[in-house]
Amino acid sequence: MLVKPAPKLRPRWALLRVRMAGICNTDVEILRGYHQFRGTPGHEFVGEVAEVAGVSARERKRWTGRRVCGEINVACAAYRFKPECEFCRRGLETHCARRTVLGIVAHDGAFAEYLALPLENLHAVPGSLSDEQALFVEPLAAACEILEQVEASKFRAAAVLGDGKLAQLIARVLRTAIPRVVMYGKHENKLALARRAGIATKRVRGDASDRKSVRESYSLLVEATGSPSGLVLAQQMTEPRGTLVLKSTFHGAAPVATWPIVVKEINVVGSRCGPFDKAMALLRSGKVDPRPLVTRAFPLAEAQEAIAFAQRPGVMKVLLRGVKKDMTWKRGEGRSLR
Amino acid sequence: MLVKPAPKLRPRWALLRVRMAGICNTDVEILRGYHQFRGTPGHEFVGEVAEVAGVSARERKRWTGRRVCGEINVACAAYRFKPECEFCRRGLETHCARRTVLGIVAHDGAFAEYLALPLENLHAVPGSLSDEQALFVEPLAAACEILEQVEASKFRAAAVLGDGKLAQLIARVLRTAIPRVVMYGKHENKLALARRAGIATKRVRGDASDRKSVRESYSLLVEATGSPSGLVLAQQMTEPRGTLVLKSTFHGAAPVATWPIVVKEINVVGSRCGPFDKAMALLRSGKVDPRPLVTRAFPLAEAQEAIAFAQRPGVMKVLLRGVKKDMTWKRGEGRSLR
Repeated sequence: MLVKPAPKLRPRWALLRVRMAGICNTDVEILRGYHQFRGTPGHEFVGEVAEVAGVSARERKRWTGRRVCGEINVACAAYRFKPECEFCRRGLETHCARRTVLGIVAHDGAFAEYLALPLENLHAVPGSLSDEQALFVEPLAAACEILEQVEASKFRAAAVLGDGKLAQLIARVLRTAIPRVVMYGKHENKLALARRAGIATKRVRGDASDRKSVRESYSLLVEATGSPSGLVLAQQMTEPRGTLVLKSTFHGAAPVATWPIVVKEINVVGSRCGPFDKAMALLRSGKVDPRPLVTRAFPLAEAQEAIAFAQRPGVMKVLLRGVKKDMTWKRGEGRSLR
Repeated sequence: MLVKPAPKLRPRWALLRVRMAGICNTDVEILRGYHQFRGTPGHEFVGEVAEVAGVSARERKRWTGRRVCGEINVACAAYRFKPECEFCRRGLETHCARRTVLGIVAHDGAFAEYLALPLENLHAVPGSLSDEQALFVEPLAAACEILEQVEASKFRAAAVLGDGKLAQLIARVLRTAIPRVVMYGKHENKLALARRAGIATKRVRGDASDRKSVRESYSLLVEATGSPSGLVLAQQMTEPRGTLVLKSTFHGAAPVATWPIVVKEINVVGSRCGPFDKAMALLRSGKVDPRPLVTRAFPLAEAQEAIAFAQRPGVMKVLLRGVKKDMTWKRGEGRSLR
């Protein structure tokens, strides 16, 4: 636990008090040294607006105290870079060439008492959603991104490879649009969670790269195992002219024979961050309930222990509870991990 | 050179006398033992119909003596399998689950005096096209497949990675639909061939997997190097939300870090065989002229030497000239490679 100065605010940026943060596998990768990021990790959060800079008194009043979640990619326009980059000009702000990413790229994240984000990244959380639910907006939006990229109504069935946190959300999102969703995973307790949400499951035994381990094939398949061997199995399980969505961002090079992509003319779709509004709508309607995925919550002060716990076998989402509002915070200091 | 019995004809199949055949890198791979194919290789050809089985006298007369090229995937319906497979029922005959592939999968190919194909695979060659041009219909169709899969009119520029035979055809096909096409290759003599066809070129020095070797990026990129390191460079050179078409079918697993596909949300499109009619139209209109790509022709009897020659550095397309028509052929025998 370090004491860092509270983030400096640029015009139209907000200082947010973190109410709750979630631990994602990317955070674990970051703490292992991938991404070359040395700041505070954490990008899944729900917070409260503590301060807003460079806005009218009326706008300040509108934002201050509001419960929000936030998009994690901060585009160059928010840093007042002129001219804006080519991708921002084309409306692809999440692919901004000069972006920072909350808790991942050059931007201190949510495993802290406070974080800073531009107002345009914020989404007000409706009162009907608990902090626990709102915390899932970011990863759920990433799952919703698949529905932006793939015309789900064309498919009668889809498979999700993997039974971890992201795979669980993806299967639930696909299930809202596709009649049959089958999750392939190795962990009986995780597959059981999926079954309770109306998702069919199949246990994969042994090495997932063993071509004989699964014989079924699908015209839509999502790879979300977070492991190199998942891609080998995913290619094998995708039908000719089928669509294979890649969600795993494990680092390091996996030995992959890519000729099946060519011979089967597979369409491989890389998929990252997605629409917060659609994720929020799924939570509000109750079509997706992520709460059974929470294994345990820790206070922020025990972030190190929480991250260690999150890596234990069988553990799903681990939460960090922020410091209570009435604990005093003085301008110029705030605690954060690292 | 072996003497094999002439292929047996099923109803609505034709026996073709091979007039000319082309050597493709896939043939070289096959002769090295990939694909587990032990038959006669060769799938690029122009031939003449010598015999047709199970058709009316009128239909026989219409076909016999005709100059044809042929699609290489033979779907289950041509073998009278009932019921047809799921992919054939969906009109995806080139992805038939029980298909044979001329000179590649369970079907003797064109490095021989004769080969057999179903009538529905044949395309009559117009008199205005020479054998040399018609020979390119098959690989040119594979290049045209990209235009079936990708909306070319959306792109102002495209890059082709590789300067080999297939890459050359791909660049020429893309150039008919996209204002600027840039070929990245290692061989000055091959790049010069492309420049003469109106294609911009850039020489890649050193290892293509070296991230610093090329700094440009494209929203449409075709990987046709035939080498594992090509994919690494291709991923790097593809813009966020860009399209990366894979054409290389090298065997063996290459170490590939796939996270850039996810982070940049790249669309990877596997691309194989394509429309013969469109390839033929490009040849007839003169929009694509593949003749400068021919390095040398050999008689069929020197097929072994031709295949060795085709693997020499700097060599492009090598042809095999079939046995002249007036050489006698007796039912029950025909020479072929292997």
